Amino acid sequence: MVVCAETVNKALQRFSGRIHRTPIITCGSIDKLAGCIVFMKCEHLQKTGSFKARGALNAVQKLKDEGKVSGVVTHSSGNHGQGLAWAAAQVGLPCRVAVPKNAPPSKMDAMRGYGAVLELCEPTVKSRTQAVFTVITFFREDTCARLAKELGYGVVEPFDNQDVMCGQGTIGAEIVEQVPDADAIFLAIGGGGMASGVAAYVSEVRPDVKVFLVEPEGKGLGDYLKKGELTAEKDVVDTIADGIRVLKVGENCYPILKRTSADKIITVTDQEIREALKLLWTRTKQRVEPSAAVPLAGLLKVSPAELGLKKVVLILCGGNVDLDFVP
Amino acid sequence: MVVCAETVNKALQRFSGRIHRTPIITCGSIDKLAGCIVFMKCEHLQKTGSFKARGALNAVQKLKDEGKVSGVVTHSSGNHGQGLAWAAAQVGLPCRVAVPKNAPPSKMDAMRGYGAVLELCEPTVKSRTQAVFTVITFFREDTCARLAKELGYGVVEPFDNQDVMCGQGTIGAEIVEQVPDADAIFLAIGGGGMASGVAAYVSEVRPDVKVFLVEPEGKGLGDYLKKGELTAEKDVVDTIADGIRVLKVGENCYPILKRTSADKIITVTDQEIREALKLLWTRTKQRVEPSAAVPLAGLLKVSPAELGLKKVVLILCGGNVDLDFVP
Repeated sequence: MVVCAETVNKALQRFSGRIHRTPIITCGSIDKLAGCIVFMKCEHLQKTGSFKARGALNAVQKLKDEGKVSGVVTHSSGNHGQGLAWAAAQVGLPCRVAVPKNAPPSKMDAMRGYGAVLELCEPTVKSRTQAVFTVITFFREDTCARLAKELGYGVVEPFDNQDVMCGQGTIGAEIVEQVPDADAIFLAIGGGGMASGVAAYVSEVRPDVKVFLVEPEGKGLGDYLKKGELTAEKDVVDTIADGIRVLKVGENCYPILKRTSADKIITVTDQEIREALKLLWTRTKQRVEPSAAVPLAGLLKVSPAELGLKKVVLILCGGNVDLDFVP
Repeated sequence: MVVCAETVNKALQRFSGRIHRTPIITCGSIDKLAGCIVFMKCEHLQKTGSFKARGALNAVQKLKDEGKVSGVVTHSSGNHGQGLAWAAAQVGLPCRVAVPKNAPPSKMDAMRGYGAVLELCEPTVKSRTQAVFTVITFFREDTCARLAKELGYGVVEPFDNQDVMCGQGTIGAEIVEQVPDADAIFLAIGGGGMASGVAAYVSEVRPDVKVFLVEPEGKGLGDYLKKGELTAEKDVVDTIADGIRVLKVGENCYPILKRTSADKIITVTDQEIREALKLLWTRTKQRVEPSAAVPLAGLLKVSPAELGLKKVVLILCGGNVDLDFVP
C-alpha cells in the first residue's frame, strides 16, 4: 500500500459520513494582515476536536474489516488518543491508551469519555527540565507494545502509519474541492502524518498547489530533509504548540515531505505563534489550540506576493485547549 | 413606525449584503446535555463580533437616507459602540461615542479602529462599590446628548430605538428560515432591543414558536413585566454577562415583551452562566462572550420535554471577550 490519491479516496469512502467535511471560514481583517486571501479549514470542528479523528477512524475501520485484531492500542497524551478512543467506539472495538501520569486530566477525561481504558505510565524523568518528554515517549512506546502483545490488540501509531496518513490526507482532498483556486496550503508539522497525507494527495491531484510546512523553532526540518539525519539528542521541541512537539517526522512520512516540500519550510517562534493565536481568537472567534495558529504565524512571516500566492488555505488543526490557557 | 415583520423585512433589505447571514451550528454533546436538539445562531460571527451591527446599520443607514443628520453619536462601553462605529463608517458618516474612562482599552481600540472619535467621560463614582454603574450611565447619557446638540448628530440609543430593534429583529427572520421546525428561541435579555425585535417578528410570522427570555439573577424581569414598575434603585445588574448588565428594558421594548414572553422568563446565576460558557468553549470551540452563554444556561435549567420543546434555537449574541478572560 502507498499513500496516494487512490488510498486517500478509499479513506474518504471508508469514513462513510462519520467524519465531518469541515467548513472553510474567511476573515477580512486576517486577509489584510496577511496580504492575500486566506481560507481556514476548520479541523478544530472535526469529531473529537482535531483532525486526528480522520486517521484514527481510517486505520481502526480497516483493522476491524480485516478481522485480525480484538482491539486497538496507542500511546498519546493528546489528540491522537482522543481520536483513537472515539474511532474504536465507532467500530465497536475496545481501546487502550498508554498515557503518562502527568498528562492533563482534561485529556484523560476526554479519552475515558469516548470509552478508552487508560494505562497510566510512570513519567520517569531524567532531569526536571529538558529530558522529560524524551523519557515519556520511550516509556509510552514500551507500554503500548506490551499491551498489544498481551491483549492481541493492533497498534495504531500517531503518525507513522500509512492508514493514519491516508486518513489525514482526506483534508487535502476536501480542500481542493472547497477552494479549487487555492495557490497553496500552509500546515503545521509535527510527526508529519497530516503533512505527508495532504502533500501526497495534493502533489498528485493538483501539483500546482504548493504545500508549505510551518515548524516551531528548534525542529530543524529543513536540514533534516536535506541530510536525512538528525543531530539533536532530544525527541521533542520545546514549544507552546503542544500538538507538534515531536521532533522527528515518521519514516513513512519522510520521503513524501522530502519530495514535495523540502524547499517550502517556514520556521516560527513561540512568540509568533502566540500572536497568531491571539489574532485567531479575537478576529475569527474560533477557540483553536496553539498548534492551529502555527500556519498563520508562518503566513504572516512571508510575503505572499513575492511567493506568487494570492489564495492560501491554512489548516486549523485542532481546538483542544485547556479552559485556563491564555495565549 | 412600529416594530413588526414588515419593518424587520425592510431592515433586511436596507442591509443589502453588508450584514452576515450568520450560520447555525449544532453539537451532539450539547444536545445530550440539554435533552433536545439545539441549534445555535452564531451572532458572534457577525460583523464587529456581535449582533449589534444589525441594529446600528439599520438605524444609521436610515438616518443617512433621510439626510437630516451630519453624524451619529451614542454612549457605550461595549458592543453597541463598536456596532455604531462600524455602521457609521459603512455609510460614510462621522461617529462619536461617549465612553467611560475606565472602559476596557481593547473595546476603545476597536471603536477607534472602526473610525469613531471617543469622548471619554469622567466615571464619577458615588461610592466604590454599588453605585458606580448608575452614575456612569447618567453621565454617559448627558455627554451623548450634549454632543448631539453641539454637532447636529443623531443619537442612536443602544436598544430603545425602533430602528435598532428592527435591525436586531432580522435575527428572528433568519432563524425561521434556517430552522423552520424550531419550537422555541432562547435569548439573553438586557435592554431588550434584540429580544423585542426578535419577539415582534416571530410572534407575527410564526406564533407557534415560543420566545424565551433568559435573564441574569437580580434583574427581576418577571415582576417588572407584570407590575410595570421597578423597585430596584440601581440601573445595572451585577453579573458576569457584561453585555446584559442594564436593568430596565427600553420603553419601546416593554409592551412587546409583555405581550409575547411575560410567561417565558428564566433566571440564571453567574455560576450557571460560567458552566454554560465552559461548555460552549470546550464543546463547540466557539470563543463567545459570557452573555452568549446565558441562553444555554437557561435551557439547561428547564426540562425541554415538559415544555414540549424538541428543537430549540439559542442566540449566541457575541464574541467580544478579553484575551485573558477565563470562565
